[in-house]
Amino acid sequence: MSTTIGYAAFDPSTPLAPHTFSRRAVGPNDVQIEILFCGVCHSDLHTARNEWHNTLYPSVPGHEIVGRVSAVGESVNRFKVGDIAGVGCLVDSCQSCPSCGEGLEQYCENGFVGTYNGPAFGGGENTFGGYSDNIVVNEKFVLRISHTEDKLAAVAPLLCAGITTYSPLRQWKVGPGQKVGVVGLGGLGHMAVKIANAMGAHVVLFTTSPDKKEDALRLGASEVVVSKNQDEMSAHLNSFDFILNTVAAPHNLDAFLSLLKRDATMTLVGAPASPHPSPSVFGLIFKRRRLAGSLIGGIAETQEMLDFCAEHNIVSDIEMIDIQTINEAYERMLKSDVKYRFVIDMASLKSA
Amino acid sequence: MSTTIGYAAFDPSTPLAPHTFSRRAVGPNDVQIEILFCGVCHSDLHTARNEWHNTLYPSVPGHEIVGRVSAVGESVNRFKVGDIAGVGCLVDSCQSCPSCGEGLEQYCENGFVGTYNGPAFGGGENTFGGYSDNIVVNEKFVLRISHTEDKLAAVAPLLCAGITTYSPLRQWKVGPGQKVGVVGLGGLGHMAVKIANAMGAHVVLFTTSPDKKEDALRLGASEVVVSKNQDEMSAHLNSFDFILNTVAAPHNLDAFLSLLKRDATMTLVGAPASPHPSPSVFGLIFKRRRLAGSLIGGIAETQEMLDFCAEHNIVSDIEMIDIQTINEAYERMLKSDVKYRFVIDMASLKSA
Repeated sequence: MSTTIGYAAFDPSTPLAPHTFSRRAVGPNDVQIEILFCGVCHSDLHTARNEWHNTLYPSVPGHEIVGRVSAVGESVNRFKVGDIAGVGCLVDSCQSCPSCGEGLEQYCENGFVGTYNGPAFGGGENTFGGYSDNIVVNEKFVLRISHTEDKLAAVAPLLCAGITTYSPLRQWKVGPGQKVGVVGLGGLGHMAVKIANAMGAHVVLFTTSPDKKEDALRLGASEVVVSKNQDEMSAHLNSFDFILNTVAAPHNLDAFLSLLKRDATMTLVGAPASPHPSPSVFGLIFKRRRLAGSLIGGIAETQEMLDFCAEHNIVSDIEMIDIQTINEAYERMLKSDVKYRFVIDMASLKSA
Repeated sequence: MSTTIGYAAFDPSTPLAPHTFSRRAVGPNDVQIEILFCGVCHSDLHTARNEWHNTLYPSVPGHEIVGRVSAVGESVNRFKVGDIAGVGCLVDSCQSCPSCGEGLEQYCENGFVGTYNGPAFGGGENTFGGYSDNIVVNEKFVLRISHTEDKLAAVAPLLCAGITTYSPLRQWKVGPGQKVGVVGLGGLGHMAVKIANAMGAHVVLFTTSPDKKEDALRLGASEVVVSKNQDEMSAHLNSFDFILNTVAAPHNLDAFLSLLKRDATMTLVGAPASPHPSPSVFGLIFKRRRLAGSLIGGIAETQEMLDFCAEHNIVSDIEMIDIQTINEAYERMLKSDVKYRFVIDMASLKSA
């Protein structure tokens, strides 16, 4: 057991505040990581405020973790003290079901263990995330980071926003010669634009904000469509090979489904608190279109994504904050007032 | 030009009644068919009553046509006078777009021409369907029938109900070792059960009517689940490789989506007049599930389906009617009071 300091939500409505708790002792297969940076995901806010109705308090959010290995168990052979390492959304799974067998731990049929609020997905004790000074994780769920050390803060959001967009882009085989849409330019959307562009696709970014156009082009979009402009939308009817929809706010899916070619898919990675308007069945039937969902990614695929991003010099666009301003950061996130991900400099914990 | 007798809807609310109209002269590539039998599809009723808001009156429904070739154009080489032939939902398409090039005329990017109410989909003059004594169709859109002649009436529904279910079962690669759900036991559903069973799948039929159980087992289902029984439904969570949903009435899709395995698809072939309740995004995301649509089938696939059904001795379960009772048949269809498809004996037209 070791004493850990962090920030926690204690109930749905009061601000996050300092919290001291225990981590398990480093077991034979465990890696202990001194956390350097932790990205701030919208899921953190949903969980802190119990918006998905499954939060166990106190709750220490954070699943975009980059840090330095500070101890390893005796059976660990992939990491040594001093290595840079990452932890994403999962810290355990059953390792015996078909999904785990295929390296798709995020779909573990016995429920994966989330990096925080873990029992909401699987069983056992509550888990505490990356808004803290260290974490102890089975090495199977620890990722290698090969970006240069000056980029580590901007690497942190790859562990959730990166893999959440990379995985469906790979699953639906995005590549050169394809026209790919990305709906929404937030934490997920800006990663999707960078990654789909690096995969060689022609990327079209859909946004409701005309003032995001320049930024989207800079990030790697070839075209930007203001989705409220019907003429701009109509020009793209039946033309997309794939659309990745990152918007969690309820919105009209048909506007985007109608832009898909025959047999093409729109995949949702945002989880709205209330349902989208029901999609038109005619829109699916008349072009044999598909609407799908996708959840983060497995550990092997997360490693593949990190290596892909390092190779293509991809990181997140971030705004660094001190942990003491996390509550203000949440308020700004609710107004989409961040380009494009807050990352907590965990050194600030020590000045608390 | 030839004079044709048939039954037509003249407006959305009055009963169908006799109607005399002209067919085009038999062109070099045309086949003229003396119609022996015509199935009664729910689309006929939707169109007669303008429920899809696109009906051109007078409207002669009918796109499940089986008959005998009575004349052929000089360039026709696949049919000769006296052959048995079929016509389904399409009588023309552009033949030049990518979908037509792939033999998927039902997704023609310039709009296919429906067998009736044709301009609703493509362009040109209105088309008149199979509630008539003859039809003239380009041979490319005429199907060969290899069932024995005593089964021709029961073959007619294959031209729409058969291909509408066969096509998605093929597209999503249904076969031995798979657990396949069919939602609804009507005209489409009973064909889906027969065909999926013949493809070697383990077929589970979902119905709201416990009294359909015996019939479903007779038709080829291995199991029957009463979808209103939560315990019966829960026993099948996360277990289906594919579900074909044939129910057009708005209903809760999540109840069935939750039964799909990871990465599996539920395909809708029923087109509701008002939307289904919006499907849960979480249900799609947490198993990377897919919701899709499918529209009838192309001409080559329709021929493949007819040959498959002849080989496996599959026809529709039908109730034969005279054309004079078509309006009563529509009322019975609205009450699902038919097992499982009405077919008009077109000889009755001559006794009008």
